[in-house]
Formats: sequence, C-alpha cells, structure tokens
Amino acid sequence: MVKKVKVGIVGLGRLGRQHAENLAFRIPNCELTAVCSVIEAEITEIQEKWQIPYGYTSYDEMLTNKELDAIFIASPSGFHCDQIIKALDAGFHVFSEKPLGLYLEEALEVQKAVEKHADKVFMLGFMRRYDRSYAAAKQKIENGDIGEPTLIRCYGLDPASQMDNFLKFAKANYSGGLFLDMSVHDFDLARWYMGTEAQEVWAIGGAYSRPEFEDIQDAETGAAMVRFENNAIGIFVAGRNSAHGYHIETEIIGTKGSIRIGTLPERDQIVLMQENGAVKECYDGFLERFEQAFSSEVEEFAHCILEGKKPDVTVHDGVESTRLGYACKKSFETRQLVNIQAEQLVKN
Amino acid sequence: MVKKVKVGIVGLGRLGRQHAENLAFRIPNCELTAVCSVIEAEITEIQEKWQIPYGYTSYDEMLTNKELDAIFIASPSGFHCDQIIKALDAGFHVFSEKPLGLYLEEALEVQKAVEKHADKVFMLGFMRRYDRSYAAAKQKIENGDIGEPTLIRCYGLDPASQMDNFLKFAKANYSGGLFLDMSVHDFDLARWYMGTEAQEVWAIGGAYSRPEFEDIQDAETGAAMVRFENNAIGIFVAGRNSAHGYHIETEIIGTKGSIRIGTLPERDQIVLMQENGAVKECYDGFLERFEQAFSSEVEEFAHCILEGKKPDVTVHDGVESTRLGYACKKSFETRQLVNIQAEQLVKN
Amino acid sequence: MVKKVKVGIVGLGRLGRQHAENLAFRIPNCELTAVCSVIEAEITEIQEKWQIPYGYTSYDEMLTNKELDAIFIASPSGFHCDQIIKALDAGFHVFSEKPLGLYLEEALEVQKAVEKHADKVFMLGFMRRYDRSYAAAKQKIENGDIGEPTLIRCYGLDPASQMDNFLKFAKANYSGGLFLDMSVHDFDLARWYMGTEAQEVWAIGGAYSRPEFEDIQDAETGAAMVRFENNAIGIFVAGRNSAHGYHIETEIIGTKGSIRIGTLPERDQIVLMQENGAVKECYDGFLERFEQAFSSEVEEFAHCILEGKKPDVTVHDGVESTRLGYACKKSFETRQLVNIQAEQLVKN
Amino acid sequence: MVKKVKVGIVGLGRLGRQHAENLAFRIPNCELTAVCSVIEAEITEIQEKWQIPYGYTSYDEMLTNKELDAIFIASPSGFHCDQIIKALDAGFHVFSEKPLGLYLEEALEVQKAVEKHADKVFMLGFMRRYDRSYAAAKQKIENGDIGEPTLIRCYGLDPASQMDNFLKFAKANYSGGLFLDMSVHDFDLARWYMGTEAQEVWAIGGAYSRPEFEDIQDAETGAAMVRFENNAIGIFVAGRNSAHGYHIETEIIGTKGSIRIGTLPERDQIVLMQENGAVKECYDGFLERFEQAFSSEVEEFAHCILEGKKPDVTVHDGVESTRLGYACKKSFETRQLVNIQAEQLVKN
Repeated sequence: MVKKVKVGIVGLGRLGRQHAENLAFRIPNCELTAVCSVIEAEITEIQEKWQIPYGYTSYDEMLTNKELDAIFIASPSGFHCDQIIKALDAGFHVFSEKPLGLYLEEALEVQKAVEKHADKVFMLGFMRRYDRSYAAAKQKIENGDIGEPTLIRCYGLDPASQMDNFLKFAKANYSGGLFLDMSVHDFDLARWYMGTEAQEVWAIGGAYSRPEFEDIQDAETGAAMVRFENNAIGIFVAGRNSAHGYHIETEIIGTKGSIRIGTLPERDQIVLMQENGAVKECYDGFLERFEQAFSSEVEEFAHCILEGKKPDVTVHDGVESTRLGYACKKSFETRQLVNIQAEQLVKN
Repeated sequence: MVKKVKVGIVGLGRLGRQHAENLAFRIPNCELTAVCSVIEAEITEIQEKWQIPYGYTSYDEMLTNKELDAIFIASPSGFHCDQIIKALDAGFHVFSEKPLGLYLEEALEVQKAVEKHADKVFMLGFMRRYDRSYAAAKQKIENGDIGEPTLIRCYGLDPASQMDNFLKFAKANYSGGLFLDMSVHDFDLARWYMGTEAQEVWAIGGAYSRPEFEDIQDAETGAAMVRFENNAIGIFVAGRNSAHGYHIETEIIGTKGSIRIGTLPERDQIVLMQENGAVKECYDGFLERFEQAFSSEVEEFAHCILEGKKPDVTVHDGVESTRLGYACKKSFETRQLVNIQAEQLVKN
Repeated sequence: MVKKVKVGIVGLGRLGRQHAENLAFRIPNCELTAVCSVIEAEITEIQEKWQIPYGYTSYDEMLTNKELDAIFIASPSGFHCDQIIKALDAGFHVFSEKPLGLYLEEALEVQKAVEKHADKVFMLGFMRRYDRSYAAAKQKIENGDIGEPTLIRCYGLDPASQMDNFLKFAKANYSGGLFLDMSVHDFDLARWYMGTEAQEVWAIGGAYSRPEFEDIQDAETGAAMVRFENNAIGIFVAGRNSAHGYHIETEIIGTKGSIRIGTLPERDQIVLMQENGAVKECYDGFLERFEQAFSSEVEEFAHCILEGKKPDVTVHDGVESTRLGYACKKSFETRQLVNIQAEQLVKN
Repeated sequence: MVKKVKVGIVGLGRLGRQHAENLAFRIPNCELTAVCSVIEAEITEIQEKWQIPYGYTSYDEMLTNKELDAIFIASPSGFHCDQIIKALDAGFHVFSEKPLGLYLEEALEVQKAVEKHADKVFMLGFMRRYDRSYAAAKQKIENGDIGEPTLIRCYGLDPASQMDNFLKFAKANYSGGLFLDMSVHDFDLARWYMGTEAQEVWAIGGAYSRPEFEDIQDAETGAAMVRFENNAIGIFVAGRNSAHGYHIETEIIGTKGSIRIGTLPERDQIVLMQENGAVKECYDGFLERFEQAFSSEVEEFAHCILEGKKPDVTVHDGVESTRLGYACKKSFETRQLVNIQAEQLVKN
C-alpha cells in the first residue's frame, strides 16, 4: 500500500502557497491535510479549491490534530524557531523554511530541540542542495573532477523589481539583514561543497541607490570574504538591486578544475536576436529558478519519514550557516574583521 | 469540489511509464485509474506500487470500464490509429502520443473519427508546444518581436547511444522512417510558428556510419528543405547519431529578428572548466529534455475536459504533420522534389 | 635581408582601402608601392597620407610598372576576371578578391590564364580559411575529432542596416544574385571541409520584407540544399536582412561529433545585463568579423611569393564555388532541382 | 610626410619579442631602430632577420643613440624603475611594461622623474584599457548604461601549465608576490572603471596544491576584498593554477545594470560537440588573449608622441595600482585588515 505522509502547513504566503500546492498535488507520498494561517480567507479558499480537510487560524490548535504526521513551516522567519520547537515537542516530523532563526541564540535552541527528538525527521529548506545543477556539481566535486576545492564564490542577488517591497517590509520588520537573509543559502552551499567551517570574515557594503538601507542599518549590495578553517577562500556577494533579475551563481575553483553553476541566470532556452544584439531573458525570482528544487526537497522529506532515514541537511547546517551570517552582520556593522570561532556570536 | 479526470493508460514502455507516473502523482486534476499492457508483470507491479484500481491485458476490456473518463494512448505507433478510434467510439476523451499513424491514410481515418465525436476532447502529444521555451517563443512571435517569420530551421537529433537499439527495433518493425518518426514534432512546430502549410519538399540523407540504415531504406542523418505556401523556407535536419546527446534546436528567422530555442542542448546550469576547456554536458534524451512539457500537456488535456474546451493541438495538426513527413519520405526514396499539394500522399 | 613584395592595388573602396592599409603597415613582407583607382582624389589622399610612390587612374598603366611584384585586385566584381588575366599576362603575381567572376564562363577563362602562368602565384580572397576559428576547425576535422563529415550548414547573413545600400547598388549593377554574391565563401568552406563536390541543388527564397528584390529577380533571404557527390548534405542560408548584424555561422556534423563556428555572432567579450536580460552585441560587418583573416590571407600570399609555394586556395576552388553558386541561381530562378554535374552551367 | 617614431627596445623575452615584432611590422607610425638585450645572440638574430640598424648589450649605450625618439622597456620587472628614469633623463619618450616597480618607493621615484620631464610621453603597459572589450565596457559605463558602479570583481588567473616555470623563477627572483605581479592590471581597471581609490583591503590565500608557494611566502591562489573611498566594493581573485587556461574576467555591477567581460575565456568561436558535451577551448596565455591590445597600446603611444598628447594611462595610475598591490601583500602577510590611506606603504 502507498503510505502517504499527512502534512499540515503553516504560512500561506508566496512560497508557502507554492509548497502547499506541491504538497497537495505534486509530491507522490504526501497529502496536504491541514492548512494554517492567520488570514482566514486564505484558509477557506485553499480548503475549498483543493478539498483540504482541516483549516486553522491557530497554530497550537493544528498541533493537536492527531491525524497529521508532519508539520511544514512556511511562516515569517521570526516564527520559525518557536514553531519548530512546539511541533517537535508535539511529536511531529518538521520541515521548516530557512532561516532557522533570526538570532544565533534561537538557532541553538532549535538545535537542542532537534537533538532531544532524535526519532523525528527535521529538515531545513536549503533547497538548493536538491536543485539538479547544484546536486550534479556536488557529485562532480566528490568524483574529484576539480581536485581540492580552494575557493568558492557565491552570488545571491534579488531582482531590483522587488526592492521597494523589501524596503517596505524591512522598515516594519527585522529581516536579519542582507547576509542572514540572502546569503544563508550560499553559506550552506559553501560548507557543503568545501567541507570546512568559516573562521574569519570581513563584510562590507552600502546603500548605493537607496539611502533607506542606511536608515535600517542594512546594505543594498554587500560582499563578504571568508577564510575557512582549512585556509580555503569564500566570496559572497548579496544584493537587492539586480537590474536583470534573480541572479544565483556559484563557482568552485579547485586545484584541478572549476565548476560554475548558473553563469548567467538565463530563464529558458531562448535567444532573441534583434537590433540590440543577442538577448537572453533572466529569471524573475526564486520560485521560477528553484521550482524543481522546492518540489524535490519535499520528496526527500517524505522519503526520510517513510523510510526512517535522516536528510542530508541537518539542524547543525542551519546553525552554522546562521553563525556565519551573524558574523557577516557583525563585521558589516563594526567594519572590523571578525574571528568567528573566537567570539561568542549570540544575540545581544 | 475538485473534479478529477479518471484516466486509463495503454502502453507502459519508457514514455508510457513516465506518463503513468505523472498521471498518478503530478497532474493535479487527474487520477490514474486503470493501466493496460500486454505484459502482465508491468500491470501488477504498477497497480501494487501505486495502488491503481484496475489493470488490463486487453485494451478492449479497458474500454468497457465506465468509471473512466479518458484514455491515454502510449502504445507502439502502429496501434495508435486503431486505439484512438475505438476509444472515441466507446465514448472517451482521448490523449494519444504522436504520431497519429504511420501512414497518411490512417491519420485521415482518425481525423474522421475525431470529427464524428466533436463533443470529446482529442489531443495529440505534440508536447513541445507546452515546453516553456517553445511556448515563450510562440508568444514572442505573436507579439511581433521578430516581424514576419520567413525561415524556420529545426534540428531533431537522437543520441548516438540509442542507435543500436533503434536499428534492432527498426529491423523488426516499421518505424515510418527518419522523417515521420523524428521530424514530425518539428513539422508541427513549423506549421504552428509559421502559420502556413508546406507546398514543396526535397529530402536527402544517408547511412553515413551504419550501412544497416540502407538495408531498411532509411537514413541515419537526413535533411529536408520545404517551401511553404506563403513562400517561407523550412529546413529540417533529423538524425540518429548525435555524438553529444539529444539535440533539439529550433530557429525562426523573421523580417525583424530571430529566435533560437535550444542553441546548444545544455542539460543543466553547470560549466565544468578543466584542462580541455569549458565543458557543458548535453541532454541524454527526450524524457530529460521535455520533462516539464510531458507534464504540462497532460494538465492541459485535463483542463480541456473539465472546462469543456478544445486543446490548441488538433487532429488536423496531426494529419498535416504526417502529410509532410510522408512527403519527405517519398522525396528521400525517389530522390525527387515532391509537390505536397499536387499529390495524393497516401499509403500505397 | 628582408625581401619585401612590392604590391600595386586596384580598387580603394571599403574593403580595398582596408587591404591597402594592411599592405602599407601590417603585412611584414609587403610594401604598398602603387595604388590605382578611377577616383583620382582617393589616390592623391592615400599617396600623401601613407607616402605611396605610385598612383594610377589607369589599370593598364599600373601594369607597366616594372618595380611591382604583385597586383592586388579589390575592384568591383565585374572587373575581376579581366584584371586578373591582364595582370598575369603582364607577369605579375595576383591576389584577387572574390568572386572569380560573375559568370561561370569568366571563371573558367581565369582558370585557363592561371594554368598558363603556372610560375605565378594566384590567390583568391577566400579569407575565411585564414580566420583562426575556421582554420582551427579544419585542423580538428583532419584530426578526426568529428569522424566523417556528413552535413555542413552555413549561414551568411548581411546586416539589415546595409539592405538599402545593397538595393540601390543592385538596381544599377548586376550583383550575381544572393547565392553567388553571399554564399560563395560558404561554398568554398563546404568543399574544403567536406572534401567533395556538389552534385544536386535546390534553392528557394523570397522578397520577404522588400518587394524590390523581386524586381531584380533576387532573394532577400534564401536557402539552398545540396547533395554532394559522396552523398553528404549541405545547407546554405543567405540573406541581406539580419536584424542583429553580420551573422556568419558554420556547423559541420560528423559521424563522431560536430563543430560549430560562430554559434552567435558576438562581437566582443562583453555581456551587458540590464532590465531586458543578458545582452551580447553582434558584429556589424565583414571588416569587423574577419579583420584578422583579411590580414593573414595576405601574409600567406606574400609567403607564397617569397618562398616559391602555392597557396591552399586555388583557382579551381574559385571555379567550383562559382559553379555551385550558379547552380543555386538557376535553381532559384527555375524553381527546379538542378543537377550540377549533368548540366553545362555557363553564361547564356 | 609620414612621421615615424624611432624606437629602441630593451628586453627581448617572450613579451619583449612580441612588442619588437609589432614595432617592426605592425604599428603604422613606429620604426624599430634599436634592440638591446644582455643576450647577444638575441640581438644578432633579430637585427639580421628584421634588418634592425642598431643592436646593444648595454642599455646605457643605447641611450646615447640620438637617432632614437623613444625607449620601450620590456626587461624584467626589477629593472623597470631604473631604466625608466635613465631614459627620461636622457631625453626620450618612454613606454614601460608593468609594473612600475616592485616596491612602492621605486614607483614614487619614477613618478617624480616623469613629473620632472613633463614634455616627454610616459606610458605604462596597462594594455587592457586598449583591449576592444575593455574599452567598450568603459564606454558603456560612461554612457550610464549600468548606472553608478558599486562592485567590481576581477579574476586574473594564469594557466596551471605555467606554474612550474613560475616557481622556478620565483625561487631565484623576487616577483613581488601574487597580488603585485598578477592583480596589478586589475587594480588599474578597478580604479579606471570605478573612479575612486582603494581605502581598506583584506587579502587571503594559500599554497593549495604546491607547498613551495609557502616557502617563498607567496600564494598559489588568493583573493583580496577592497573597500573604496566611495564605499564601493572590489573583489580580486588571482592565481597561478587555472586548469583550463588563462582566465581574465571582469564584472562591474552598477545600480542599473552589470557588465561582464570575458565570462568564460573562450579562445575562439568554435564549439566542439562530442561525447562529453559541448566544449569550448580556452586561452593559453596573455599573448593570445591580448594580442590586439598589445598592438593598440603602442599605436596610442606613437600617436601621443606624434601629436603632442598624453596617454590616458599615467604614472599616477602606476603608482596607485602598486600601492594597492603592496597593501594586499601586507594584508596577506600579516593576516590583518590594512588601511591603505592611513599607512605609509613603502619599502621596509
């Protein structure tokens, strides 16, 4: 018999709704059984449209539903930590969107909770590892195709078209800042590909076109350079003002070769040749770029539950990526080099 | 309430199985309700693994199942025609893999059957129209981005790694020949993008590395040049010996610009830089290249059934593509220019 | 001692002037010693600016200059044949821009003259063979990197920005038509790479945006498909309305691999990423695209003279490319398949 | 009359010889009049082969030749400073290969000498500014095509095939270290494109595959991150172990767009498609990549002399690039952030 994982999701924003739709229709071994949101209209609409049995405006109430096997957290970042711990304590498997938390302290608390519930599957939404290109790159590195990785360069640039929205949001909410919010996926990739932890970091940046970024002590575009424990080099560029679109690019330079993933963020296989030249359109956002990965990571989550395995992405990965993000934030704010291991990088 | 289309599929080969899996798990409004194959083990395995209620070794028997709404035909090409007609006569909506038939005569019979059952949705698996890149190209052409289309060039090349398999198959079965078997998707695209019908064609080719192609009066690699009714130009290259992989490329040159789709068949976003240069791996086959399209076309099929619409791909498209394929075959065999409209291109 | 070849050039149009400048300054073993043009001002200007000893308005007079070693012909196509023969008869080495002549009959006369003066170096300006990319492709083919060449596809498209100029010129002068004028370089490349002669051809085309092309019985964009003697396939696309610029692209498909030269006509190494996507500007014309080749071919010419060798490009190459161009013209005009070997393709 | 600049060159190594050949044959307004080298055989060979009137084993002796207009310095880096000053003092125009000197102190001395001889043209071989792609990028930036430049990323990677040679050289000679030797062109480009000076830098790196780099206190691969005075970001990656060849890549991210130059170091227009995928070969070294620029910069030098102008590249550019290189070296060695303006970055 096909065993299906019954999932309750919390958070029905842009990404949450996509996850909900995937859970309802595209993940073979999952069944979307409950939806939870503070906006009642969202619940009603989805329940009716997709025939979802349960709807909740209260997260705690959803956690009392014994039919559910797993909780999927796609709420705003500030809630992740608390909701993860509660769901684990209530006996559920948990999938949480990144980040683990907006403060390192929180992330460490989640880590404790996950360790306490070792029989439960906990998975963090570092979906890039499940993107076909990123996964194939990992394979090539493990095959030794590029020798020893010595330098990783990561670009994580959000489209300029989203900058207004972000500024509106960030003025009212604590986003974590450019590096924690945008580069955390890259930090995870760097640790995954390079097999080492960050030791020192220097991060700089500025409010190049929009002074509002200064008002919120954040950067519009920024860069962090990292020395890893094994002396390898990390370069991380993050930004919110990419004119051509959503630009995720990663390069790993090794002693025997290099791999680039997403050299240019070409959205499809079309080249349009016109008066101004040969034009390739670019991705407009993460939902378009990582469509396959957002689905594959949840397939993996279901697999792990059904087969009693643990996912490759662990809570430790979440903690360490957060720690590095936090160090970047500190370096950017203090204008100093930050020694990650030497300091206690926690919430002040 | 979510209305689901209950589908019975016939044919569980490589593509058939992929369609079955999509129908079972990835098409929101479909439910895989019955599977039919002459190989009993295939049925049993799939029924158990995916919990499919009905299994048949007899196609006729499946057609008596009144629970089904639609029949999905993924059997060998020689059966399409007969199975389509039977399914329509039995009152089902029908989705059939291409080609409509191996002979133009057959295709015309299907056309009659479809016209007779005008209340039923009939859709032919010209999936490329549902591929994101091909669909976006259509949009750009309709926007006038390239002016009037004047020339279309289509490459349809199967990987050399499949050549042995094909030769084994083709020695025992009638494949229709290179142009009918391989270029029929391109003929559909050409008609779709150019908005005109083929008038004259000259087709040439040869058995360049494998003399067996001559034994079966077929070409290993071939090319057809078409003059369309509006005097536009069509160039079609087909082959079974593509060293680098599955190469589907299309270019439309217009009076104000050009569009290319799939310039190089790069399988993912990775570039590997090593001693021999910058290397991009290529697609290994149609399932990899058209994964998204194989799913989207079936979503469209379900949509049409549920909303009482007709798909863009009509039986007429199937007939005309077959007619052009047949003309290419005749030109290749006779070494003459073939006037498509002037001749009766039917089974002799 | 450095022996320098003293050269007299006839024709100081756009390409002629570039050649003159190269001869004067960039070809190590050449010395531009005389310039000839019907426009006296051109001569005076160049003589003064570059200190060229001799200037002529009469070609015949230039041929009496015993200081000269070689004559470089860059005059309008209609004069090539006559000027080549006169220069050879006067005892000079001769470099002539393509085409050999506008009529096959003429080309055959040149061939006789060249054969009569076997001690002289005669070279035809098929510069593409001296372009680094084209030369490297030849090397790879000879290395066996792609196995046996089975299909060649050539694009030769002039920028739309030149279409008005061309039409003005072509209304007053006989250009030879699209295939003789534009594809003759491609015909030479095809024969060079494929190592075989054309046997049958079908050529089509039209006046897609500018009806004036019909008035002069020419095509704005056209295509020719060729069956070679060894049954290999040739596809030639020529046009005068390329929106994005000067587009020269060549692909050779072999039994073990393919080579593409100039996939997209990217003019430099820049990608500009802006709102509309990632943009690569394209070449604006042959002087920009083939700058290196226009210089290298003349270096080779000088080499041959100084070292008593013969260039790879022979008069026979000129004759056969012209023969194929003529066959295309005939096929385009008659709308029939043309058997090149069976017919006498001469001036009527 | 054509005025020609009579040039004497010192240094006939790989690049020196190329410059000599260009001066002799490819720069319209230059005449190679004297060659100087400590290796007598080099002088004799070139004098005979190219008919160069003067040959010297003593640099001082060459400076007494009153026929010469200009001195071209292509000797080893350690000699530049001294030779520049002497040539200026002797009344010549001077072109010097980069770097200005191996120590900042030296560079400052050259600056003084250049300022003293304000009537002489002094030009430093920052040839990239004269490369067509780099020059076109500058134009686009000045056009405002990318808004305000906010981040520049530069890769300067030498091919792994040269690593042994370099190590042999560097064990016996002081090379200046990775950043001064390799990135100095990038520092010049950064200052040129960004229009600002470096303020702070952190540089890291290591001996990833060859421990000998540690023995000479140098890095095999390294990276420097720079904060400019206007708060813009600079990222510089340099290395001597690029598996795929000579990789020079530059990206400028602006507030309204980005420009990339040399995304992948594709040596020509060929794509080879074979079993392993679509392969583009890469440049093998600076002579191949910057052939056009090495010639154009000298044309500019001659222009400036003949027309009494000053080149865009000034001695100040040399000094500031060296200052930044020196700061990188210091940061790499001390593992600290270096404040360029606050410190006296001079030879200790």
